[in-house]
Amino acid sequence: MIDCGEGAQLQFRRTKLNFNRIYDIFISHLHGDHCFGLLGLISSMGMLGRTAPLTIYGHRDLEVLFKPLFDFFCKGLPFDVKFIAYNPNISELIYEDRSIQVYTIPLNHRIPTAGFLFRETIRERHILKEMIDFYNIPLKCIPAIKKGEDYVTPDGETVVNERLTIPPTPSRSYAYCSDTAPTDKIIPIIKDVDLLYHEATFAKSESKRAKSTMHSTAEDAATVAKKANVKKLIIGHYSARYSDDRVLLNEARLVFDNTILADENMCIEI
Amino acid sequence: MIDCGEGAQLQFRRTKLNFNRIYDIFISHLHGDHCFGLLGLISSMGMLGRTAPLTIYGHRDLEVLFKPLFDFFCKGLPFDVKFIAYNPNISELIYEDRSIQVYTIPLNHRIPTAGFLFRETIRERHILKEMIDFYNIPLKCIPAIKKGEDYVTPDGETVVNERLTIPPTPSRSYAYCSDTAPTDKIIPIIKDVDLLYHEATFAKSESKRAKSTMHSTAEDAATVAKKANVKKLIIGHYSARYSDDRVLLNEARLVFDNTILADENMCIEI
Repeated sequence: MIDCGEGAQLQFRRTKLNFNRIYDIFISHLHGDHCFGLLGLISSMGMLGRTAPLTIYGHRDLEVLFKPLFDFFCKGLPFDVKFIAYNPNISELIYEDRSIQVYTIPLNHRIPTAGFLFRETIRERHILKEMIDFYNIPLKCIPAIKKGEDYVTPDGETVVNERLTIPPTPSRSYAYCSDTAPTDKIIPIIKDVDLLYHEATFAKSESKRAKSTMHSTAEDAATVAKKANVKKLIIGHYSARYSDDRVLLNEARLVFDNTILADENMCIEI
Repeated sequence: MIDCGEGAQLQFRRTKLNFNRIYDIFISHLHGDHCFGLLGLISSMGMLGRTAPLTIYGHRDLEVLFKPLFDFFCKGLPFDVKFIAYNPNISELIYEDRSIQVYTIPLNHRIPTAGFLFRETIRERHILKEMIDFYNIPLKCIPAIKKGEDYVTPDGETVVNERLTIPPTPSRSYAYCSDTAPTDKIIPIIKDVDLLYHEATFAKSESKRAKSTMHSTAEDAATVAKKANVKKLIIGHYSARYSDDRVLLNEARLVFDNTILADENMCIEI
C-alpha cells in the first residue's frame, strides 16, 4: 500500500478489499492527506484479528510521531508493527522479495518526501517444451535452464540456452511520485517505467501557486513522463478547485498523449 | 460537536455542513472511533482559513497524545486550539454560554469515559403585551419583568409578575451517553431530559459480550431511559454484526416505547 490518508480503511471496506492482506505500507511524506489513516487502519486490522506483522516505511519522524499513539490506542495489538526509516535524499532499495524490488525516489516538496519505484525482479526465461523433449532433458536441470544456463548432454555436447528457451516476459515497473515540484533528478530513476503516477495538483493557470506550494501542474507531470520515456502516465492529487478534471487531462495530453486521470478505486493492469 | 471519529471531515463535506461553525468539540473517551478524526478535521479547518479559536474538551491524555501531532502537522495553523481536561469521575459544568450549559456524565467503560448533558439555561418569561399596555409600563422595565420581577407603578402599587407574564418555554435538554455499560449512577444526572442518546452496541443475545466489553444492550439502554423518565431515547453505536438494526429497536421498545434508531446524518428537533 502506498500512502494512507484519512478514511483509507473506510474506502477499503467499501471496495470489499481485504486490508489484512497488506504487509507493507510505504508512506511518501508526513502531510496529513498521506498518513492520517494509519491509526484507524492499524486499529481495525487488530480488531479483525490480524496476526501477520506489518511494516511501515517512512521518514524517521513517522515513528516518533505515531508510535506513542499506536502504543496508547492499539494496546494489545495481536500483531507487530515495524517502522523502517528511509533516507528521503537518495534513491535506495528499501524492500525486496522474490518477485519485486522497491526503491525510493527523492522528490522535491515542502518537507522531506520520497516517491517509490516498484520493479519486478528479472523473470525466468520460458522453456521451449519441444526442445526439452527432443534432448530428453531431465526435470532437475530445468530450473538452471530457466535462469539462462546451457545444457550439456550425457555425451558432453553443449546445447546453448537460446535453443532451449525464449526470453522472459519483460519485468514490469511502476513509479509513484507524489507530492513534488517537477524535478529532473528523478528522470534517470524512473526511466522507461511501464506506468508513472505523477501528481498534477494544478492547471497551467495556477502555475505560480504550484511553484510556491512545491506541487506540479499537469503539464509538468507530462513533461517528466516524456523526458523519462515512460509508457503510460497517470495523474492525480488534483486540487479541489477543479470540478472538471479534464482541464488537467487536456493540458497533460498536449505534452504526453498516453495520459489518464486517476480516480477513486481505479484498477490498472500493467 | 460531540466526538470525532475517523472521516468526520469527509462526512461534513458530504452533508455540506460548514464545520468552521464548530467552536467546541466534546470528546467522550480516547478510543479511536471517537477521536481519530480530530487531526484531519483541524488540519482542514486551518486550510479553509479558519481564524476562530477551537476548544476541545476531553480526558487529560487527549492533549498529551495529540498535541505533538497538531504541532507537527498543523504548523502555522491560523487559529488557536485549546484543550480543556475534564474529570471523568464526576459530573461537572464544563461549558456555559448565554443559552446553554454542558455538564459531564461519568460513564462506565473500559477506559475513563464521560457523556455530556446539554441543558438550555432557564429561558425568560413571556410578556403579556396587553397587560404591559394596560399598566403603561415603560420599555426599560421589561427585561426585569421577563426575568420574573414584579412591577411597581408610579403610584406605588405592586403588580405581581404572574399578572404580566406567562411561564417561559421549557428549557430543552439532551444527554449523550456513549460508550458505557449500563449504570444507575447516571439516572439522577439525566433525569427527565428531552432526548437521551444511549449506546446500544449489542442485542440481548450478546449480553455476555456486552458485559465483558463494558457496552450496553438495547434493552439496557431502554431501561436507563425508563428509569430516568426521559422523553425520547435514541440508540446507536451498533455492532457491525447487525445487518438489520431493527432487532435492537424492537428489544428497546419492549422496555421504552419512544425509542428511535440513530442513523447517518440524522437530524432531530428537540
